[in-house]
Amino acid sequence: MKKSLTALVLASLGVQGLAWAGEAVHWTYSGATGPDHWAELSDEFEACRLGKNQSPINIVSDEVVESALPPINLDYTGSTASVINNGHTLQVNVSGKNSLTTHGGTFQLTQFHFHSPSEHQIDGESFPLEAHFVHQNEKGELAVVGLLFRLGEENQNLVSLTEVAPQKSGEQVSYSRPVPKLLNRDITHYYRYSGSLTTPPCTEGLRWFVIPVPVTISEEQIATYIGLIGADARGPQPINARIVLHGK
Amino acid sequence: MKKSLTALVLASLGVQGLAWAGEAVHWTYSGATGPDHWAELSDEFEACRLGKNQSPINIVSDEVVESALPPINLDYTGSTASVINNGHTLQVNVSGKNSLTTHGGTFQLTQFHFHSPSEHQIDGESFPLEAHFVHQNEKGELAVVGLLFRLGEENQNLVSLTEVAPQKSGEQVSYSRPVPKLLNRDITHYYRYSGSLTTPPCTEGLRWFVIPVPVTISEEQIATYIGLIGADARGPQPINARIVLHGK
Repeated sequence: MKKSLTALVLASLGVQGLAWAGEAVHWTYSGATGPDHWAELSDEFEACRLGKNQSPINIVSDEVVESALPPINLDYTGSTASVINNGHTLQVNVSGKNSLTTHGGTFQLTQFHFHSPSEHQIDGESFPLEAHFVHQNEKGELAVVGLLFRLGEENQNLVSLTEVAPQKSGEQVSYSRPVPKLLNRDITHYYRYSGSLTTPPCTEGLRWFVIPVPVTISEEQIATYIGLIGADARGPQPINARIVLHGK
Repeated sequence: MKKSLTALVLASLGVQGLAWAGEAVHWTYSGATGPDHWAELSDEFEACRLGKNQSPINIVSDEVVESALPPINLDYTGSTASVINNGHTLQVNVSGKNSLTTHGGTFQLTQFHFHSPSEHQIDGESFPLEAHFVHQNEKGELAVVGLLFRLGEENQNLVSLTEVAPQKSGEQVSYSRPVPKLLNRDITHYYRYSGSLTTPPCTEGLRWFVIPVPVTISEEQIATYIGLIGADARGPQPINARIVLHGK
């Protein structure tokens, strides 16, 4: 009952295409149902193996192309609504007006979630955590901002979140706070490329924005996250014909 | 016998992934086996419908992003080898050293072929003809240069080609000339994006370079091409999360 209620809530938030389309099929981050086998688990997951524009990637700073991209403008005025431990990540659903505007138009934040270690790498370097802020436009297209964390001081923006986070997979709790100020309002220094969901069904056609200036998180906070979810990062995928743009 | 010999020759040239992987399945540019139905004709053609990074596209000049791309350097020192009418296009296979070097490395020309009207559009405008110069690197990745033609004077570089071109689908003739000088040696003004084959199986992961300065072709030459092949252009596909880079 709890699970179907969760699915219902998520469907009403329009996020079923993200973590939940594949929810009927069991997949993991290691072993026989891990990333190397996702495509074998369902016909719906074929893009995980056949896609030529997959995420995450290793961003090689010598190969990015400087470009005249406008800043990313974030206008987050809404609040969080709930925190879900879905077994794959800790996901925070949001409500209200939380917009992202850049080349390609305006998108609304639907949720943010985490991966540890980071999914994106920079010059082969992983980071202890990455947050994904998932936005959607009126056509249902997704724009995701990936924020990297480095080890350092405790991140005050995440304290209350880990306090309320459900311990068990499949559980959610309501959580009403302002959307945390993890990102600047105007982001001028970022990488952009065309990629995919980093979880099954690995759907492509996503606008990816990776912020290369990491914010801090403490070792204790990382340990708490790993204790709740475990390691949940897909490894870097081939860049193929894509170019990573560097706006600055 | 002729067909299997052709397939053998093409396979030996390493181009079977291009126009020929789908050769066993009949497809066309109109009607029940036309572009809107390619994906229904074979499981191998799924990317034609499901792919989010398909070619061709309409390049909207207001939406391209200026970027610090290096020029495309072409060093075509080899010669043509044969001309094939494969029913879908007029294709010229080449031999010798004909290299393309740009951001992403060096690729060797394997063949060039044509589409009428053009497959790429610029600000919604079609052109009467487009040539595709197909290059491959050591990993088998493809880089294609699309050259647009506008109506005007007869194009001297194409005269001997249309003279020898086989009238019947499935036929090829040997054709040994220097690779025609349709492209400049250094191309500084071009559009670049990540796309796909424009024919089944519509495989993605191709580097696309479109040259927006059209060369000329006469009405009579277009009529000759249409007489041989018929209209052979796939319509523009959604841009989705991609950005078209403008090097100049």
